[in-house]
Amino acid sequence: MSKELKILVTNDDGITAPGIKALIEVAREFGEVLVVSPDSPQSGQGHAITIYKPLRLKKVNLFDGIEAYQCSGTPVDCVKLAKNVLLNDVKPDLCVSGINHGSNSGINIIYSGTMSAAMEASIEGIPSIGFSLYDFSLDADFTASKYYAQKIIKQVLEQKMKNTNLLNVNIPAGGLADVKGIKVCEQAEALWVEDYKEATDPRGGKYYWLAGKFENRDPENKNSDVYANNNGYVSVVPSWHNLTKADAIDSLKYLENI
Amino acid sequence: MSKELKILVTNDDGITAPGIKALIEVAREFGEVLVVSPDSPQSGQGHAITIYKPLRLKKVNLFDGIEAYQCSGTPVDCVKLAKNVLLNDVKPDLCVSGINHGSNSGINIIYSGTMSAAMEASIEGIPSIGFSLYDFSLDADFTASKYYAQKIIKQVLEQKMKNTNLLNVNIPAGGLADVKGIKVCEQAEALWVEDYKEATDPRGGKYYWLAGKFENRDPENKNSDVYANNNGYVSVVPSWHNLTKADAIDSLKYLENI
Repeated sequence: MSKELKILVTNDDGITAPGIKALIEVAREFGEVLVVSPDSPQSGQGHAITIYKPLRLKKVNLFDGIEAYQCSGTPVDCVKLAKNVLLNDVKPDLCVSGINHGSNSGINIIYSGTMSAAMEASIEGIPSIGFSLYDFSLDADFTASKYYAQKIIKQVLEQKMKNTNLLNVNIPAGGLADVKGIKVCEQAEALWVEDYKEATDPRGGKYYWLAGKFENRDPENKNSDVYANNNGYVSVVPSWHNLTKADAIDSLKYLENI
Repeated sequence: MSKELKILVTNDDGITAPGIKALIEVAREFGEVLVVSPDSPQSGQGHAITIYKPLRLKKVNLFDGIEAYQCSGTPVDCVKLAKNVLLNDVKPDLCVSGINHGSNSGINIIYSGTMSAAMEASIEGIPSIGFSLYDFSLDADFTASKYYAQKIIKQVLEQKMKNTNLLNVNIPAGGLADVKGIKVCEQAEALWVEDYKEATDPRGGKYYWLAGKFENRDPENKNSDVYANNNGYVSVVPSWHNLTKADAIDSLKYLENI
């Protein structure tokens, strides 16, 4: 490659999560890495941005020879600050987000800080990939994730993406030998269904704490990411920020005459 | 109608915002209203959910004869708590969100707490409409918003929606006479572009505060919501939670062989 590529790395589990360390190790093979990651866990922050209070950036020396900052905001704030403040509005060649501790398949993409950070970069015209592993644990095995992240990043940089610039990549739990390969898929109709736990605080006040279970509402769809993951494959879903349901427009045109 | 309809009303500007009062006044004509709204402003919260701390619901008597709660969480938390805790998982017939103080046209839909609350209900199969007005002010004129909200809700309840159950409705600023009618549109490639204000706190620490300007990147698109609004029309964009970029799948299939 003629010039060294610039790669922005972020996540939503925070800068101390093993997953971002694994992703930095992959990304640094391809170019100069800039890390901007939240200073606290930000799972489920979706596309939230911080409007009502100021944000802080703090330089950290966590990764050998890598410029890195922890940010007091959300994952999307990290990308905005990286682009506007640290990179002076010069776009990096690639943004990678993750590796998330826990899957972001199906409708999880909408709730995920990891995928929202990737989407924020993609909205700004930066090719962007979010990686997530079906394993929440601190000592999760990232071997397969790193192997496939390396392969996918290499291809995306060489071949470029067509008709999108955002990929949602989910990797099944387990070691490299447990993963069968890659499937390019569509987003499953699958999501966490809430079931709040009700309890009483020490002062007698009632509170609710989010719990729930993951539910695949279209288990027969063999083209979905959740189906691929459940069958041992890494899923790659090309994604996008335009939420228009185009095939609903015609049937609603009558509203123009009410 | 044979039975009284149940309508969930929420927003992201918080339960004291004039916009939600205006929407309740419209919604109560159509059925029994339940209000669950954040106890503080939640603009820009996107699809954030609260995972790491408990949530509170507090009953309030702000709206004559209407059951209403303020919630300590995000707009999406409000919808989840309404459905799971207050409605015992019985779906309301309709969810309306807003009327937002400020537009949610274009890519704003992704950042908007108002639209994310509406989308959360729609994911759960509840027909859902978000309403937003191009006017941030506390004393905004909601006359046109209420007029068109009433018309659109009536039609949606009578005709049902096809191919979607989520509408993003944006109303131009001004009085009823300033608004020309309704256009059914697609989401514009238009968004707030950030420009952080850098400053120093009283203890010498540097901070950044989000600012920016609204930019329409496809001003020639006459089918977009921003174009409609700029030309005096209420925009209605049928929307959806599936972010798959379907036309990018084939060109990425080669990833299955790397």
